Amino acid sequence: MKTSNKAARTRHSLDQVSELTTNRLSVYLRCLNLLDAAGTRTVSSQALADQFHLNAAQIRKDLAYFGEFGVRGVGYYVRDLTRHLRQILGLDRRLRVAIMGAGNLGLALADYPGFRQEGFAIAALFDNLREKVGQQSRGGVPIHDIHDLRKVARREGISIAVIAVPAESAQHVLDLVVASGIKAVLNFSPGTLEIPPGVKLKSVDLTVSLESLSFYLARGDVDGV
Amino acid sequence: MKTSNKAARTRHSLDQVSELTTNRLSVYLRCLNLLDAAGTRTVSSQALADQFHLNAAQIRKDLAYFGEFGVRGVGYYVRDLTRHLRQILGLDRRLRVAIMGAGNLGLALADYPGFRQEGFAIAALFDNLREKVGQQSRGGVPIHDIHDLRKVARREGISIAVIAVPAESAQHVLDLVVASGIKAVLNFSPGTLEIPPGVKLKSVDLTVSLESLSFYLARGDVDGV
Repeated sequence: MKTSNKAARTRHSLDQVSELTTNRLSVYLRCLNLLDAAGTRTVSSQALADQFHLNAAQIRKDLAYFGEFGVRGVGYYVRDLTRHLRQILGLDRRLRVAIMGAGNLGLALADYPGFRQEGFAIAALFDNLREKVGQQSRGGVPIHDIHDLRKVARREGISIAVIAVPAESAQHVLDLVVASGIKAVLNFSPGTLEIPPGVKLKSVDLTVSLESLSFYLARGDVDGV
Repeated sequence: MKTSNKAARTRHSLDQVSELTTNRLSVYLRCLNLLDAAGTRTVSSQALADQFHLNAAQIRKDLAYFGEFGVRGVGYYVRDLTRHLRQILGLDRRLRVAIMGAGNLGLALADYPGFRQEGFAIAALFDNLREKVGQQSRGGVPIHDIHDLRKVARREGISIAVIAVPAESAQHVLDLVVASGIKAVLNFSPGTLEIPPGVKLKSVDLTVSLESLSFYLARGDVDGV
């Protein structure tokens, strides 16, 4: 009974974890990596907040969702917390990623150093242009024929697809990805997509980032900053 | 007295507007563009929420920061609200953008269709490789020598720079950007940067998006999704 209550509570709190929280966990993980590289062994939520311009109360609240990681009077052990965060984010197994589209964006993403650092393996690029198939990215990611997606995805154990094709092909490519059994998709294509049930799609809208800068520039005019 | 109170209140509420709010305003704008393209003239917050999987109360709250745009019994006039949102986000003047780095990522960003659609003009690419300078992106954005940044930025009226260079050059390039008088920077380089005062820098960490998918995949194992 106690166990099932605990399981229910864990599931309940996981359901409440918003994308904003997981984004913050990613940021904490990045900060901890820097601390570890600098030889820091323990850190308090306040010191973490001060050093990286974060919010100490928010850090404590976010981590409390997942258990008690802090030690009174010490703070957090950097390596322990890193390991816990990597587990929570599912990074303790090396996820394999395919990139759909070997244009400039796809090739840039295939060799993006941040992915590899955090333990993602970019295993394959896919394109439909005959002159690209059989080539590879500068970093050595092979470009496959998109018609071989299902076969290659199974062989390579791909669990995440990144869509980096022009907007007019995005829906077709998403349908191919889903048909191949991949359940998690990161989409860089602007415009809306029909997402089949059981698939988690996250869109990166680069325009939103520019508009946030535009807002600050417009506000700067008012405030004389 | 009334006017100065109102000005103070406006400035106060602008200060409180978080990046999350401006990101949501960008999303609303994108939805309104789709409605307008489909010939829809008015929309209620509830219909907007239902159609695009948003939160009606949040929409009303976000828009209320900036004034009363809704009409009782009608909802929002799509074109009026679009115009207001574009003003709030500073998109009513065409901001000119420079991209630092004409590698795969820089070239992909230079021709990214979403930027142009929302009224940003990608005016220039910069690189330090002799074989790239004088060339242009597929979409026709010219590649300049990074040594000419200050001159070209002034001539072209650049107000936003996008950093798309390898991590090891990012700080140096940011310093050049700031020295050229550009005050808003969108950074795609992983790693930390020293940001001079008076400069607004927004970093796009593509790894965070992948980690959020990783979290959902890890959770899927638990729930059997």
